[in-house]
Amino acid sequence: MIEKSEDVVVVHSGGLDSSVLLAKLHAEGASVESLSVHYGQRHSARELEMARRFCAEIGVAHTEVDLSGLGKVLPGSALTDESVPVPHGHYADESMRSTVVPNRNMMLLAVAGARAVATGAKVVAYGAHAGDHAVYPDCRVEFMEAMQGALALCDYAPVRLYAPFAEMSKADIAKWGDDLGAPMNLTWSCYEGGALHCGKCGTCFERIEAFMLAGVPDPTEYAA
Amino acid sequence: MIEKSEDVVVVHSGGLDSSVLLAKLHAEGASVESLSVHYGQRHSARELEMARRFCAEIGVAHTEVDLSGLGKVLPGSALTDESVPVPHGHYADESMRSTVVPNRNMMLLAVAGARAVATGAKVVAYGAHAGDHAVYPDCRVEFMEAMQGALALCDYAPVRLYAPFAEMSKADIAKWGDDLGAPMNLTWSCYEGGALHCGKCGTCFERIEAFMLAGVPDPTEYAA
Repeated sequence: MIEKSEDVVVVHSGGLDSSVLLAKLHAEGASVESLSVHYGQRHSARELEMARRFCAEIGVAHTEVDLSGLGKVLPGSALTDESVPVPHGHYADESMRSTVVPNRNMMLLAVAGARAVATGAKVVAYGAHAGDHAVYPDCRVEFMEAMQGALALCDYAPVRLYAPFAEMSKADIAKWGDDLGAPMNLTWSCYEGGALHCGKCGTCFERIEAFMLAGVPDPTEYAA
Repeated sequence: MIEKSEDVVVVHSGGLDSSVLLAKLHAEGASVESLSVHYGQRHSARELEMARRFCAEIGVAHTEVDLSGLGKVLPGSALTDESVPVPHGHYADESMRSTVVPNRNMMLLAVAGARAVATGAKVVAYGAHAGDHAVYPDCRVEFMEAMQGALALCDYAPVRLYAPFAEMSKADIAKWGDDLGAPMNLTWSCYEGGALHCGKCGTCFERIEAFMLAGVPDPTEYAA
């Protein structure tokens, strides 16, 4: 749980999960800061734009970190290497492995932890959820627990890792977003990074499915 | 222990500790890659130049990552915030706290872990040593153990964290460097980042002391 007025750094990709998490903590009265990291992902322009607009809409502070130099030393991922095509199909398919950015979550949590220590926040909030486990090793609960231990020791005052979606599905998150009245139209999932969500890549597929399973209106305009 | 020909990513600041570690693993027959991260530290130009020259001299691969965007979101550290002066005096003094870069080691290990996963290396080597504990919370053995656990889970194949200096002093490291014949003149410690080591900042002080305690010649030219 988060206390009222507690300072929280939220790892905010601009996607559905982290945006709903941000809105949830803000609604609960925490003093949240959105932290968006550009790590060389090809869809970053759209993601960051949505992160900015989402924060402006709900009225929370937003900070961006440019770590695009990472993309150059992490070959082989469809998200950071232009020579690797973005796969189409279901999010949980083997083909989605090419969208894994090596050790991404540790890097994001490390930067958020640094920001928390620098600003005096005692909590880092993170929107990873259960549905990600199939292809992303660093979305596993064991990994998050290990990072919890490391963040608790990274400074003399412990930093707490808060990951309330760890055991939830993306449909649960869409339902929460709808209940909160979060502006989910201002979130971005598509890995292609076009003007509209492509509607065909793995993460578009997962997004469409989440709204359907949740039984809430999908505010997204898809190209296909 | 490292196996012969094992692929190892070495976190290489260009300082004495990580450079000696690199030379040690190379001498033991590991297939090492030096990974230097520019994270907005003011002395980075000198550090990186030395890292490059050290690698060229001993003949190992060297990769640099530009994460200078980090400096902009981590206010208050003398190493990344130009408005904070570099303190003079003994390295273990309270005044040295201003040289702490929040959560630096987690960020460095996260990036090295990512590079290891991307290149297929199974080991990340890190030169943190016991003398750093007084002011740097993320040099504590407990923290390194927590990161060991996280790196073991960050990919489906575990990444191993090798930190052989964790219980050693900097004098021990200088002695090892001397025994190996490592080109320690091509390492950089000074936080000021001038043309020569200043000889007065905390880390120059620690460097001078290490060579003296080790009883080996100090190859460094100091300004003062």
